[in-house]
Amino acid sequence: MHIDLEQKFTKFTEHWHPYIVGELNDNYVKIAKVKGELIWHKHDGEDELFVVLAGTLMMDFRDKPTIATKPGEILIVPKGVEHRPWTNDEEVRIMLIEPKSLKHTGDIVVAQTVENLEWI
Amino acid sequence: MHIDLEQKFTKFTEHWHPYIVGELNDNYVKIAKVKGELIWHKHDGEDELFVVLAGTLMMDFRDKPTIATKPGEILIVPKGVEHRPWTNDEEVRIMLIEPKSLKHTGDIVVAQTVENLEWI
Repeated sequence: MHIDLEQKFTKFTEHWHPYIVGELNDNYVKIAKVKGELIWHKHDGEDELFVVLAGTLMMDFRDKPTIATKPGEILIVPKGVEHRPWTNDEEVRIMLIEPKSLKHTGDIVVAQTVENLEWI
Repeated sequence: MHIDLEQKFTKFTEHWHPYIVGELNDNYVKIAKVKGELIWHKHDGEDELFVVLAGTLMMDFRDKPTIATKPGEILIVPKGVEHRPWTNDEEVRIMLIEPKSLKHTGDIVVAQTVENLEWI
């Protein structure tokens, strides 16, 4: 399956709303536009891969310094590790690879939580 | 774990030799420089994700047209599907996300087969 991410990004405008663009093994490939900040959360059973396609993704951790990830860099957040993604005043584009079982904002439900992920 | 792919690519020169740069759940994240062509092969148990970081990756299939994948695009090759990656006369940089169980050239061993994957 060939997927043009640039073309997929033209199909939505919301921030912090991941859309599914592909699947492999028991994982989904998702894309999202993010701007501002999400809540602190963790995923007890799943490691999470962030691939930054445009802009700089900032990630706070409870017990270590904030990490900035840019295009050409990736970030893996291990299972169980609390994290808070945010951006400076810019829209950042990311690709996520995560087990299908993963919930968007962990066990916390907030306004930004997407309960039912959709394909785009 | 934060990984600077550009910096990792400076550490090796071989073509068709994937190196591990990260792991999540039961998958490895690998990078490779590719040029020329690899053999026809398949992976009976694993879907394979190709993320193209530089250049154009060509992929032949037995029963459908060749697919070209460029930066900003991804390609998922489903389990059991024979494929042959190749490039035009340029070095192409790719990131792969694959289950740890996956063998580089499927069940075929050729000169380009890497038996023991290394971290870089």
